[in-house]
Amino acid sequence: MTEMLKGIAASDGIARAKAYLLVQPDLSFSKKSIDDVQAEVDRLHKAVAASSAELKLVRETAAKSLGEEEAQVFDAHMMILDDPEFVGAIESGIKDKKVNAEQVLSDVSANFIQMFEAMTDNPYMQERAADVRDVTKRLMSHLLGVTLPNPSLIDEEVIIIAHDLTPSDTAQLNRKYVKGFITDLGGRTSHSAIMARSLEIPAIVGTEKATSEIKEDQMVIVDGNGGVGVIDPSVDDVKKYDQAAKDFAAQKAEWEKLKNEKTITKDGKSFITAANIGTPNDVPAAVDNGAEAVGLFRSEFLYMDSAELPTEDEQFKAYKAALEGMNGKQVVVRTMDIGGDKHLSYLPLPEEMNPFLGYRAIRISLDRQDIFRTQLRALLRASHYGNLAIMFPMIATVNEFKQAKAIYEEERQKLIDAGTPVADKIEVGMMMEIPAAAVIADKLAKYADFFSIGTNDLIQYSMAADRGNEHVSYLYQPYNPSILRLVKRTIDAAHKEGKWAGMCGEAAGDPIMVPVLLGLGLDEYSMSATSILKIRSLMRRLDTADMKKIADQAVTEAETNEDVINLVKKATNQ
Amino acid sequence: MTEMLKGIAASDGIARAKAYLLVQPDLSFSKKSIDDVQAEVDRLHKAVAASSAELKLVRETAAKSLGEEEAQVFDAHMMILDDPEFVGAIESGIKDKKVNAEQVLSDVSANFIQMFEAMTDNPYMQERAADVRDVTKRLMSHLLGVTLPNPSLIDEEVIIIAHDLTPSDTAQLNRKYVKGFITDLGGRTSHSAIMARSLEIPAIVGTEKATSEIKEDQMVIVDGNGGVGVIDPSVDDVKKYDQAAKDFAAQKAEWEKLKNEKTITKDGKSFITAANIGTPNDVPAAVDNGAEAVGLFRSEFLYMDSAELPTEDEQFKAYKAALEGMNGKQVVVRTMDIGGDKHLSYLPLPEEMNPFLGYRAIRISLDRQDIFRTQLRALLRASHYGNLAIMFPMIATVNEFKQAKAIYEEERQKLIDAGTPVADKIEVGMMMEIPAAAVIADKLAKYADFFSIGTNDLIQYSMAADRGNEHVSYLYQPYNPSILRLVKRTIDAAHKEGKWAGMCGEAAGDPIMVPVLLGLGLDEYSMSATSILKIRSLMRRLDTADMKKIADQAVTEAETNEDVINLVKKATNQ
Repeated sequence: MTEMLKGIAASDGIARAKAYLLVQPDLSFSKKSIDDVQAEVDRLHKAVAASSAELKLVRETAAKSLGEEEAQVFDAHMMILDDPEFVGAIESGIKDKKVNAEQVLSDVSANFIQMFEAMTDNPYMQERAADVRDVTKRLMSHLLGVTLPNPSLIDEEVIIIAHDLTPSDTAQLNRKYVKGFITDLGGRTSHSAIMARSLEIPAIVGTEKATSEIKEDQMVIVDGNGGVGVIDPSVDDVKKYDQAAKDFAAQKAEWEKLKNEKTITKDGKSFITAANIGTPNDVPAAVDNGAEAVGLFRSEFLYMDSAELPTEDEQFKAYKAALEGMNGKQVVVRTMDIGGDKHLSYLPLPEEMNPFLGYRAIRISLDRQDIFRTQLRALLRASHYGNLAIMFPMIATVNEFKQAKAIYEEERQKLIDAGTPVADKIEVGMMMEIPAAAVIADKLAKYADFFSIGTNDLIQYSMAADRGNEHVSYLYQPYNPSILRLVKRTIDAAHKEGKWAGMCGEAAGDPIMVPVLLGLGLDEYSMSATSILKIRSLMRRLDTADMKKIADQAVTEAETNEDVINLVKKATNQ
Repeated sequence: MTEMLKGIAASDGIARAKAYLLVQPDLSFSKKSIDDVQAEVDRLHKAVAASSAELKLVRETAAKSLGEEEAQVFDAHMMILDDPEFVGAIESGIKDKKVNAEQVLSDVSANFIQMFEAMTDNPYMQERAADVRDVTKRLMSHLLGVTLPNPSLIDEEVIIIAHDLTPSDTAQLNRKYVKGFITDLGGRTSHSAIMARSLEIPAIVGTEKATSEIKEDQMVIVDGNGGVGVIDPSVDDVKKYDQAAKDFAAQKAEWEKLKNEKTITKDGKSFITAANIGTPNDVPAAVDNGAEAVGLFRSEFLYMDSAELPTEDEQFKAYKAALEGMNGKQVVVRTMDIGGDKHLSYLPLPEEMNPFLGYRAIRISLDRQDIFRTQLRALLRASHYGNLAIMFPMIATVNEFKQAKAIYEEERQKLIDAGTPVADKIEVGMMMEIPAAAVIADKLAKYADFFSIGTNDLIQYSMAADRGNEHVSYLYQPYNPSILRLVKRTIDAAHKEGKWAGMCGEAAGDPIMVPVLLGLGLDEYSMSATSILKIRSLMRRLDTADMKKIADQAVTEAETNEDVINLVKKATNQ
């Protein structure tokens, strides 16, 4: 029987396909005494053989569909399965202790993991602990006779149904066959949502019960525009949503025409719609989606995808590639934003009780000036090849900005003195993501060339609510007048000093937020590349004077998040 | 040779005594094979006997100096030492494995701790894990021949020198002999600092090197007014500081005269100086120090000092006692502020990555209405016996306040309907400690009867810096103009709606902050009871019009924390 599922519309589009449940099976077991030791050892070897065969298949498919690099993780898994020390230890454990293979596997695996994790001076070996975990899971599933999901084996069109999707889940998905996501958890800024938008497939997140309501192979429709899933659709449903999908495709074709247009409102005012990117590889998609700039280039990939601190030259090449790819359009690079939930194996950070309130981003850069100066030199050298801007993350006080800027000036002067070509004009600004900074934006605007508002962190700190914590997720309120007032303060302060203000959080691509931001006078809107044309199209229908009225009401009259949503929806017919 | 040590002046006063180093000794050891097993077992039994004798002495002294209740923790330790399973396991371990007693003790202890900690359904047994840790430390010290500090044995006047002081450290101190603290870590709001102020002894914290510079039994002067320690003072130093101590005593005597006076500025304006209390037992000290109200009664002790949720009657008695003790003066009770770093063994909270940004305070109360309604009923019933006000902690949005208030109104009506006497007028306000709330204070002021600013959390969230994290402690900036602007916003919003605004953070008793707060028009100043008379005296010397000028400069012209400090110091000759 047809059933409807409501969730958060996280990525536009409409798709229909069979459900693929990417759900971890129950791998629990009980400890049991074994009489027939040989039978148990045989059972172990059968499970090893089955795991090995499965891994080989997964590895081959992954190499074909995802590429050789993604497939190599499975080589590491096979090596562990082939390691006589590992399987041998399980075998002798069964013989010595006369307990079931599951129990011995669990014990031996725990020992190996502990051993690898203790190798604190060898990050490579430490990471093997994760491989042991994965192999143990696979072996356990064969011992228990349950099936592990192997998403890389998918060879037909599917809608992925999951509790939540992690980066390692999505890395194994063949983009050709995955038509949509429906998850139990997450919001518009969760990994699942961001990944869906980047793949340009529809997604609904936060349904709470997708994995319990939807069964493997059931036909499912994902309406990522309306935030609705239809399980076992009727003939009428199929007709209706196929039409909606066609309409959406037609709308996308309309948006497509705006690719080379400027971002102009109904009353002829110009704004910038820009893309957020993670690596230089994202530049073609940004260009393809008509980005007028890169409003946020997260430089973390240089640090995360590496086994040691990236050299000045490695960084220089990446920045140069992005600048050249954007062909004279501005690229705003955010300096290292490590810490919080982002860790580097080769840069041990202190254990912290509240890492989001801890040693991270500019706080590390000001402390570890060796790392910071290397990055600044790479950026300055790359500036010669395009239109570079630099911004510092997590600035809380005037002193921090002044310190960071002074270090930048020192490196700049050193390069000039050495005769290295450096662009004449590089804007040096800051992320506006800490409440104290927004409150004192008028003072910061004297020193920073621009502000780029990071809504996720700004909301998280302003509300004192971890955005990843489901127990306080109700406080993630982007439209709350308190947040909008801080945004207004930031924009007004920038304008008063003749500077510009942008936003590089997901909110900059949100159809409810954009009318308000337009009314507040935000200059630059940086978002997932795939949202740009939709927002550009929306802005062409909006009048800035009308939006100013809405924005004024939002920051003066409204009391709650809901007040603002209702206000905007009514005024813009959304 | 005389040496000076600089630190943060954390508690007023001047004292001179011998140093007592409350420092944990190095208890590390290497695993060793043992040939003479019997000799090793004998060594173990000797250490057990010595530990046992020491514990007996410590227990007796503690009972005399600290009271029977504080001493009982040592009974639990002795029970473990007497437990044949514990010592027996170590003995057989030595025999079986032929390794040194230290290694076996460490292994056996780890097993016991794990076992106790696994008893998640029995909080009492879980807490035994801490006892095992303490006993292991003591036994290890005797095996290694090093001396553990036993602060409860102190029988002469001392200055305590420590890395940092924990609540369990200070619980063992005999107040009669402890004349001052000097610590390496901490700020004005650390446990060491708060404890020193409550004991009315001088303290310097954050010296970074007290434990490495000062040796056991060295003569030390603590100048808690100036934040200076003098090690091995010269005759001239002794003379100078003895005079300063006399002067300070004279000043305290002057302050003492203000005990029954109102808090009035030079230009005759009235304000309220109030006390922060933790239990009804703190009321006499509040009254004794001339508190005009209790501005913050932390209700957590009812939940923390209990093995299960406190009943309505238990709470009622505690609130009634505080109200009666204050004899008609207002007592502001903050509803349960559990979560963050405060946990209850009987109320399991979710594991959180950033507990300070998590499920805590009013967020728990709105979710667990059973707990919240019990507390509100107890408060309402107690209201009949004095002048009660109630405030909700961690309010971030208008909706949260309205929800909490609605629940309060329901319980109030139920009690009235049942004929229970309830005060006609109970002010219901909120803590102002979340940036989003301060930004939208104008809207909240329509619903709340008053605001009480919690500076510690407000600074922590505004700066996005955990106040307990030493790596970002430089961002604890109470005088930063961004913080002062949020304070001003809160006060102005309250006044515009005819409500009052107070502050119950440590900043309300800080001589640099008070002039600014006076200038901003703050109505109520709630602080450690022992700071009240000093602040009352300070306020009598200040003119509100002059302070308004300073405050205006602080919120408009100043850019940094240091700017404001300089401004205030200059204007008030501090």
